[in-house]
Amino acid sequence: MSSSTVTSLPKTDRSWPNPIASRDLDALRAQVPLVHCITNVVVTNFTANVLLAIGASPAMVIAEQEVEAFAAIAGGLLINIGTINQIDAPAMVKAARAAAAAGTPWVLDPVAVGALPYRTEIAAELLTHRPTIIRGNGSEIGALAGGEGGKGADSTQSSSAALEAGIEVARTTGAVVAISGEVDYITDGKEVITVGGGHVMMTRITGTGCSLGATMAAFAAVSDSPLDAAASASAVFAQAAELGLQVASGPGTLAPAFLDNLASITGPRA
Amino acid sequence: MSSSTVTSLPKTDRSWPNPIASRDLDALRAQVPLVHCITNVVVTNFTANVLLAIGASPAMVIAEQEVEAFAAIAGGLLINIGTINQIDAPAMVKAARAAAAAGTPWVLDPVAVGALPYRTEIAAELLTHRPTIIRGNGSEIGALAGGEGGKGADSTQSSSAALEAGIEVARTTGAVVAISGEVDYITDGKEVITVGGGHVMMTRITGTGCSLGATMAAFAAVSDSPLDAAASASAVFAQAAELGLQVASGPGTLAPAFLDNLASITGPRA
Amino acid sequence: MSSSTVTSLPKTDRSWPNPIASRDLDALRAQVPLVHCITNVVVTNFTANVLLAIGASPAMVIAEQEVEAFAAIAGGLLINIGTINQIDAPAMVKAARAAAAAGTPWVLDPVAVGALPYRTEIAAELLTHRPTIIRGNGSEIGALAGGEGGKGADSTQSSSAALEAGIEVARTTGAVVAISGEVDYITDGKEVITVGGGHVMMTRITGTGCSLGATMAAFAAVSDSPLDAAASASAVFAQAAELGLQVASGPGTLAPAFLDNLASITGPRA
Repeated sequence: MSSSTVTSLPKTDRSWPNPIASRDLDALRAQVPLVHCITNVVVTNFTANVLLAIGASPAMVIAEQEVEAFAAIAGGLLINIGTINQIDAPAMVKAARAAAAAGTPWVLDPVAVGALPYRTEIAAELLTHRPTIIRGNGSEIGALAGGEGGKGADSTQSSSAALEAGIEVARTTGAVVAISGEVDYITDGKEVITVGGGHVMMTRITGTGCSLGATMAAFAAVSDSPLDAAASASAVFAQAAELGLQVASGPGTLAPAFLDNLASITGPRA
Repeated sequence: MSSSTVTSLPKTDRSWPNPIASRDLDALRAQVPLVHCITNVVVTNFTANVLLAIGASPAMVIAEQEVEAFAAIAGGLLINIGTINQIDAPAMVKAARAAAAAGTPWVLDPVAVGALPYRTEIAAELLTHRPTIIRGNGSEIGALAGGEGGKGADSTQSSSAALEAGIEVARTTGAVVAISGEVDYITDGKEVITVGGGHVMMTRITGTGCSLGATMAAFAAVSDSPLDAAASASAVFAQAAELGLQVASGPGTLAPAFLDNLASITGPRA
Repeated sequence: MSSSTVTSLPKTDRSWPNPIASRDLDALRAQVPLVHCITNVVVTNFTANVLLAIGASPAMVIAEQEVEAFAAIAGGLLINIGTINQIDAPAMVKAARAAAAAGTPWVLDPVAVGALPYRTEIAAELLTHRPTIIRGNGSEIGALAGGEGGKGADSTQSSSAALEAGIEVARTTGAVVAISGEVDYITDGKEVITVGGGHVMMTRITGTGCSLGATMAAFAAVSDSPLDAAASASAVFAQAAELGLQVASGPGTLAPAFLDNLASITGPRA
């Protein structure tokens, strides 16, 4: 795909405040969607706290014996391969298949895909179960499009540079692709939504990207479309971070301030 | 059991401040009990911090090869099935059996029991090893009494409505049953202790209930009875939350304030 | 070894501020070393946040299928056996072997070694792969030298009393040994570095010792020697804790303040 293709797609900014995100946030708080998370061991606690703060109901059900039944009844599912191993991998595949079969929207966070063959193969298998949204950094989305992966979980590619890859992945997989960075790009392959306000300080807290993926799964249970879900989650996150930075003295105090703001944020009504 | 049975049991309130909780807290801090925790991956960190803050010594020993020896020497054991899988399940059963054999008091937190068959079966097996205390929300206690479970870890039944089920479970299993909610109910089947002061904001932090179970295991190592242990843990928790809410701006800042208060709380002497 | 041997070794204090630690911290922030962590489930989140705060790039890669390739490309590796089980143990051994083969400096944190046979055997196997640094409390270092272990993760032996054992372990294994306590002792068997400023309040936060080991792995990627790496990590930690205590109201608020300080600390230039 040429970069002129990227340029020709319609672009909309949905940075906070915006009426769709406000409406989606109201819906999330009213419906309290059950969000099934199979995520990495580093961020389970923070992810659960993010979902609780924003108003969703997290449930980390990880046993191979339980994930199929649970993914089917959940409002949304997150699969994050950050610390994948031989115990979690089959559970993730079963959960993805069950979610797809039941019509549960699900988010794939392909942490460090492309950097290591084992997880790259499992990510490929997960992709066959049609994720609703794929959220990653520029390197990860680039790797899914056939490029090289970054080192570990940190991106070596800016999100804008990865937009072309993201459009390609969206068109190939049918998923909405959300690329996190200083500006978040969200695309279904036909249009591009931007959300500004990313701050480098948020990258100094582990799990901000991972919990954004989980929050997209929560919004996917209540939004009109996966594109809206990903965009609304990004907009709320960026605003909660922005407000948090006004009171924080560093990454340590930013994390609780961010959670406080996720719980209290309200916006203009549609 | 008719609700008149519930009504006829003697009821005592042990909300903070109360002399038994104060005495138990002093004893806990003096004895620094070793608390063996096999808990879910979401709350391990918070649970350890809660135990350290209040003055106990947490140890998360989870290998099947190690749990029997460790449960036997610990002052108390917590088993929480929140993220149970095929690796943890046999270790939990071995630990419960070893604790019962060694006379180590142990607490069962049957997260989401009744909602999924796999964990429901393991919970049933764990119950055969005679837990000292069972701590759960209304839905979980209702499920143990034969009712239906809730969705995931969040309760769909109030703690007062579950009291009847709790009395039945206490009588059937011989355990003290602690039902967490706006008011906590604690019963051995013969009397009922209430602890007020539960706040909805605490349900917006993951692991508050789970770490309460761990704290009951700590108190069980030093209290005169399992009933006292469960009541004292509940009373201290509710008071630390109450004080935390006076300074917190939301769930994010409530968590560290709660931990601070667990470390500093002191009460009237017996 | 007689205590006169200990006394006769040259001793240097490297408490903050000191020019070597400042230089190492600058180097760490400039190079952003990739730190591969295979650590216990209690402290993964806090460890990642500590590494991000100080300026390193953490990556928790734990699958047996991935650890060898990753340990080879990482700047440093941490192996912490706190919650070791049959899934993690073979991955830890593979990672240690791969790190040694690739020349990646690696830190062993032998949590509760000596207290339980299973982990004691695995620690012995890990030692055959020549750790660069061994970090532990007095009881753990004593156990490695052939003494008895403590109960769980908490030390029952002061770090000064364990110095003799540490010197012996350093000479036997070729590793730098770091003993954490009120005063940290760091030795390669030929000299002893002391770092003051340990505070008991830091022992009320889970993972402070574990994340210090991870930070030593980060410094090992950039320092002139393993001795410098361990000493610089200890000096920065003690200073960040000292500053944190000035604003904290207890262990709950100390943790975020500590992280803030890790991110902002700067010192005199060499």
